[in-house]
Order: sequence, then structure tokens, then C-alpha cells
Amino acid sequence: MLNLKKATTEELSARLSELRALYEEYKSRDLRLDMSRGKPGSEQLDLTLPMFESLSAKDTYLTQTGFDTRNYGLLDGIPEAKLLFAELLDVSPDNVIVCGNSSLNLMFDYISTAYAKGLCGSTPWSKLEGVKFLCPAPGYDRHFGITEYFGIENIVIPMTENGPDMDLVEDYVKDPLVKGIWCVPMYSNPDGITYSDETVRRFAALKPAAEDFRVMWDNAYCVHHLTDTPDTLLNIFDEAKTHNSEDLFIELMSTSKISFPGAGVAVLAASARNVADIKSRMTVQTIGFDKLNMLRHVRFFKNADGVNAHMKLHAALLRPRFELVLSMLERELGGRGIAQWHTPNGGYFVSVNVCEGCAKRTVRLLAEAGVVLTGAGATYPYGNDPADSNIRLAPTFPPVEELQVAMELFCICAEIAAIEALI
Amino acid sequence: MLNLKKATTEELSARLSELRALYEEYKSRDLRLDMSRGKPGSEQLDLTLPMFESLSAKDTYLTQTGFDTRNYGLLDGIPEAKLLFAELLDVSPDNVIVCGNSSLNLMFDYISTAYAKGLCGSTPWSKLEGVKFLCPAPGYDRHFGITEYFGIENIVIPMTENGPDMDLVEDYVKDPLVKGIWCVPMYSNPDGITYSDETVRRFAALKPAAEDFRVMWDNAYCVHHLTDTPDTLLNIFDEAKTHNSEDLFIELMSTSKISFPGAGVAVLAASARNVADIKSRMTVQTIGFDKLNMLRHVRFFKNADGVNAHMKLHAALLRPRFELVLSMLERELGGRGIAQWHTPNGGYFVSVNVCEGCAKRTVRLLAEAGVVLTGAGATYPYGNDPADSNIRLAPTFPPVEELQVAMELFCICAEIAAIEALI
Repeated sequence: MLNLKKATTEELSARLSELRALYEEYKSRDLRLDMSRGKPGSEQLDLTLPMFESLSAKDTYLTQTGFDTRNYGLLDGIPEAKLLFAELLDVSPDNVIVCGNSSLNLMFDYISTAYAKGLCGSTPWSKLEGVKFLCPAPGYDRHFGITEYFGIENIVIPMTENGPDMDLVEDYVKDPLVKGIWCVPMYSNPDGITYSDETVRRFAALKPAAEDFRVMWDNAYCVHHLTDTPDTLLNIFDEAKTHNSEDLFIELMSTSKISFPGAGVAVLAASARNVADIKSRMTVQTIGFDKLNMLRHVRFFKNADGVNAHMKLHAALLRPRFELVLSMLERELGGRGIAQWHTPNGGYFVSVNVCEGCAKRTVRLLAEAGVVLTGAGATYPYGNDPADSNIRLAPTFPPVEELQVAMELFCICAEIAAIEALI
Repeated sequence: MLNLKKATTEELSARLSELRALYEEYKSRDLRLDMSRGKPGSEQLDLTLPMFESLSAKDTYLTQTGFDTRNYGLLDGIPEAKLLFAELLDVSPDNVIVCGNSSLNLMFDYISTAYAKGLCGSTPWSKLEGVKFLCPAPGYDRHFGITEYFGIENIVIPMTENGPDMDLVEDYVKDPLVKGIWCVPMYSNPDGITYSDETVRRFAALKPAAEDFRVMWDNAYCVHHLTDTPDTLLNIFDEAKTHNSEDLFIELMSTSKISFPGAGVAVLAASARNVADIKSRMTVQTIGFDKLNMLRHVRFFKNADGVNAHMKLHAALLRPRFELVLSMLERELGGRGIAQWHTPNGGYFVSVNVCEGCAKRTVRLLAEAGVVLTGAGATYPYGNDPADSNIRLAPTFPPVEELQVAMELFCICAEIAAIEALI
């Protein structure tokens, strides 16, 4: 395998001609492939279909306590749904609010409340100048989009193999205008990194200057293991207890990638004080969430074991796709010195760092040949990857044959971009 | 029938003793009755149960255009749901956004956007001092609660038989800090009044000083007719077209009281400009709404005719309850000079005005005997009914036998309170 960084100009030129010929061949196929979004595949969704049948018979819509879930009431969720998600997140049901279909919406609403009303009685962020939020990057563009929407300054915190750079985080939180941080602590989007025990403990031990500092602990992939040797994540609330810092953490998850994206159930877990604060807003905001859909989920999954068993079926469908992506990367780009990537144990993405300054060019080459990837830079605040290096691959949705073609072309384009930059 | 206002003190005292004896008798029964909320009864909900069966078979989750509603996408709703609600509201599907389960949530989000970001580029209300909102009263407490939550001053606009007092409205909108008005234009909560053609036309012709003035046109009861001679309401967007004022109106409805409260579908209709403004926020706020639930609704109701036929079944269940309430009021309080009420052609409430200063006392007497009504004052901003007169009766939820007992006691308590005030 030619290490491009050590190759001569002649070798590079020859290789480039070869790659361009290959590229033109793919381009002539008039491809229409989409590898841009972390969407479950159709076979995954089929697994959950029997859920729809669980509520049609008489009285099946009653909770264990006899409450009619078809009617108004139970703002914070039906008891059995609170139990199920409390078990999954290993917290008390009292600390859980079972909500609507979108955990992103819960995060938006939480930041919106901080902005307009203030958290637990503190000054609304709209009344302050220079509010900042920490953004471990590469990270999830829609997190960054929320704080950006409210005019909050997003600050990049580099990701390490153990999670966000905690030295930097600990330094930043001394600033009372730094109001929080976005986290995907398990199988992070896009790197698939799970925060180390030390990282979690350092989060629990944070002493931010701002009384209304919040860690948005988006545990979106907490059950999305891909292998039989999954990562493990410490329970943030257990660790926080020893530091009396439970109020710092807002944990979120949803079943969007367990049952149905858009028709799942989103959940928030927080300290008693935060739960009361959030509920006081919810009483004004809504008449309540969809309890029938909660009950459908409880009837189908039953308990945490049921969810975990279901996720093994997902993993069986997803594993070949991830293996394909990783083996293609290894075969085509391994040893060329132009790309690094993570091998995730779970989550929805493979994150590839191509040569500095080559991400945008690589993505554009693919687009011009009919393959859509997540936009280069999307994994950084303001869409600005300072190294122009990170590309997020989302292998879950396309059929395997299409994924194969898209990956062949990805490797060609990444190498073309690299050589163009080297020559 | 003794007209209490013309009775002698002796007559009043004798009548009061009689009523108090009756009251004690009811009190001793240890009642637990709830007539506080506009909840559908269980028989109404049964009518919609077959909806759950519409999505279990293979491929039934695809839209007409072949889109898989189980997955991400289609932020503003599936095409067939947009068609159904556009037909119901008599607007173009392009002007419709089909959303989650709660129209209250849509209104909260809209006011929240106005507060934090501004509408269509105008100054956020959070940056202004003294923002005001008009509140036709008696009205819906949860409307008033939203503007109160954002620190906006709620201003009472008296309701007339034709809708809000439009002379006052036209006067108030000259103030650029008056930013909007809450409306339930058909079968208003609680009076059951439908805005007259003249009222609707005067709304369409409004020329508010504020460029971001909005009429929150909550058409919650647009298909909730109780009789065979229903009220009619002019189409606000048709009227607005002649004045080029479409941007003033945000229309809302939901199927909460058509299908299931909490598990229905909420809808927003607005001008192209407002729809674009709202969608630009939604792309940050959510990954999308529950499209499977939209599809369930479309499969079950099919079209506007289907909804209207379904609502006739609701009316058949509700009519006897309203007739009971109205006939009890007439029999026990008619001609006594101590109460007026509306006879609604639709909606969910009967609104009673008892003697000035007697609403709180009446509601408390009932509560002490085990019958819960909507709190006195709740139909006014800040829970403050200046005349302490309006009481909202919600006859839809309790079983008819309970409703009968609750109404007997209501009439006794209203009369006791009136005599106590007269003596």
C-alpha cells in the first residue's frame, strides 16, 4: 500500500490519474445514493411493527392503575412508562418525565426556558450579554443548532478518546457566562466514543461558577450496542450524588432509534429540583403528551430486558453494515497516511478524519457523482470544522449493495482530495 | 318561582333555611363528583378505537406517495394529513402544518418564538417593555396562562353575544405594544358564542400599529356542533384576503376532542409568510412530528365528511348532557333573577353568570360538598373575574346520573350564595 505522504510527485500523479479514471466510471453510472443521515433501515422498523396491535382490544388502553390513557391527564407520563425508562436509565421513576416524540424538542424547550425565563429562578439568559455554551466537537449538529438559534456563543471543546477535553471544560466553567455543555456520553455522534469513568467523574465533580450551568447529557445511544463487548458508561446521577451535583445534569433519551423515528417516546431524567422546574413550565406549555403511544411502547417492550433484547435484533442488522464500512476503509485507505477513523462499539456513525483541508472537497466530489454525505463541517459549531477534516458516515439506512458502492466511491474521493492537496 | 331580587327579607330567610337543609342533605352523601374540565366521556373515546387497527398490516404505513411514515422526514406533516385538515379548515394544504398532539403547545411555541426571536424578523418581545395582549373574557384560562407566563400584560376585552367587543379591540390595536389577541371564534370557551359575520369581518379589516400583531384564531370547536342547526363561522382567511391581512392570523385546531385528548393531531394554518417563519424555527426545534399518528387519523376519518359524520356521533352522546344542564338551570334558577346563562349550539361548556360577588362562594359551597367545578375566576386573566360572577360548567365527562346530582347541588349553592349576598 502506497503511503501517500511518503510518495514522490510522480507516484502521486500516476495514482491520481488512476483514481480519476475510476471516479469518472462511477460518475457515469448516474448514482443516487444517500448516506447523510442516521436513519434506521426499513428492516429495523419492521421489528417493531407488532407494537401497533397492542391497543385495539377493549380496556387495553387502561394503565395498571386503571387510568384511561385515551383522555387528558398524567402530565409527566403514565406510571408504567416512567418505570420502564427509569429502569433503562437506572434512576428513580420520580426523576423521570416521559414526554412526546422528540428528545431534541425537549432540549430545545429546556434551552428556550433558560433563555426566556431562567432555570430554577435564576436570571434568564436573554437578560445577559455574552452567554456561552461548550460544544465537544466533532459532535451533533442539531445540539449546536439549538444554542446558536438562541444567539448563544458555541465554543469548541476537542473530543479525545475519553470524551471531551476535561482540562478545558474545567477551565471554562470558571466563567459565569459559560452556561452549559452538550454531551453524547455513550457512542458519541459521530465518533462513537463512550466517556471514560474518569471523564464521567470529572463531570460529576464540576464546580461551575454559573449557578444555572447545565450538562445536557444526551444519552441517545445508551442501548445501541453493535457488538457483544459493548462499552459501559458510569451512571452520571450516581456519581453526581457523591458531589451533591445532581442539579447540573439533564439526561435525555428517546426510542426514536429503538421503535420509530418520529413516533417514539422521548424521556428526560433530572434531579427533583429540575423536574419540578420543568413541570412548572409544562403545565403552561401543553395539555400533556401522547399516553397511548407510551402504553404501546410499554406493552411491546415490557421492561429494560425487553428493550435490550430488541436492540440485539437491531445490532444483528447493523453489524454487517458497519463491518462493510470499516473493512472498506481499512482496505482502501489503511496505511496510506491520509485518513483516521474510529471503530465504534455502538451508535449510528463512523467518523472519518481525512487529510486536513480535504473534507469539503471529498464530500463535494461524492455529491457530484450522486452520493450524498452529511455536509463537511456539520459536526462542528457553525458548520465550521477548523481543520476541514471530519466526515460523518451514516451506514444504517442504505441497502447494503448501495452502501458498498458509496463506500468504494468515498475511498476514491478521499484519496483524490488528499493527492490534490499533496501535489 | 320566587324572584329573589324582589323578595322580602323574611321570604329570603325562609328560603335560605330550606336551601341549607337541602345542602346538608347532599353534603352528608359524601359525594366525589368532578365537573371541572372539558374532557370527552369514555363513550366518545370508544367511537375512535378502531383507529388503532389501521396500521398493523404490511405497507399500511406508507403514504400515497410511498413515503415510509415510520422513519424521519416530512417536517410539516404527511401530504394526506395536510389535505384532510386543509379541507376541514377550508384553506390550501400549503398553508397547513400538521404537528404533534397539542394545539396549546403550538400556541405556546408561537408566543415563545415571538418573545425570544421575534416574528418574521421583527423585534423580539423580550426586548420591549410593556407588551400587551388582548384577552376576550370570559375565555380560556390556558390561553391567558401562556401570555402571562412570558410576562405579557393580559388585557380583558368583554365578550358580547357577537364575539369580543370590537370597538375596544379596534381602539387597542392602535397601540404598537398591543401584540395580539386570543380568540376561540366558534363555540367559544366557555360561552359557546360564535363570532358573528360582522365580527369576523372587523377582525379581517384590523390595521394594528404593531407589524407583529397576531390574532390567535383557536378554532378548537370548529366541528363540535351539538344540534342540527349549528352555528356558522366565516372563513377568516377568505375575509382577510380582501384586506390583504392574512399575515395577522394564526389558526389552530386539533383532534383532541375528535379522536383522543393527548393522542390526537394538532394543526396550524397560516399565510405563506408565517408558515415559512414557523418552519424555520421547527427545523431547529424538532426532528418532526408523529407521522404514524397522522396516518392513523387519515385512514380512520378519510376526509372532512368522515370527521363531520364522526362528530354527529359525539353530538348524540353529548346532547342529553347539555339538555340536562340547561333544563336544570331553567327549572331551578329561571325567573329567580340571580343567574344568566348561554344556550350553546356546540362546544364543551355551559357558562353561567351568577349574582355579582357570588361565583367564588358558589364554587366553594360545591367543593365543600364534594363537587369540583372549574375554579371561579379561571375564565378571566390572572384568575380575576372583576364581577366574581362567571362559572364554567363542563358537562361532558361525568356519567349522566352524577351530572344530575351535581347540577341539583349547583342550583342550590348558587341560590344560597345569592341570598347570602342579598340579606
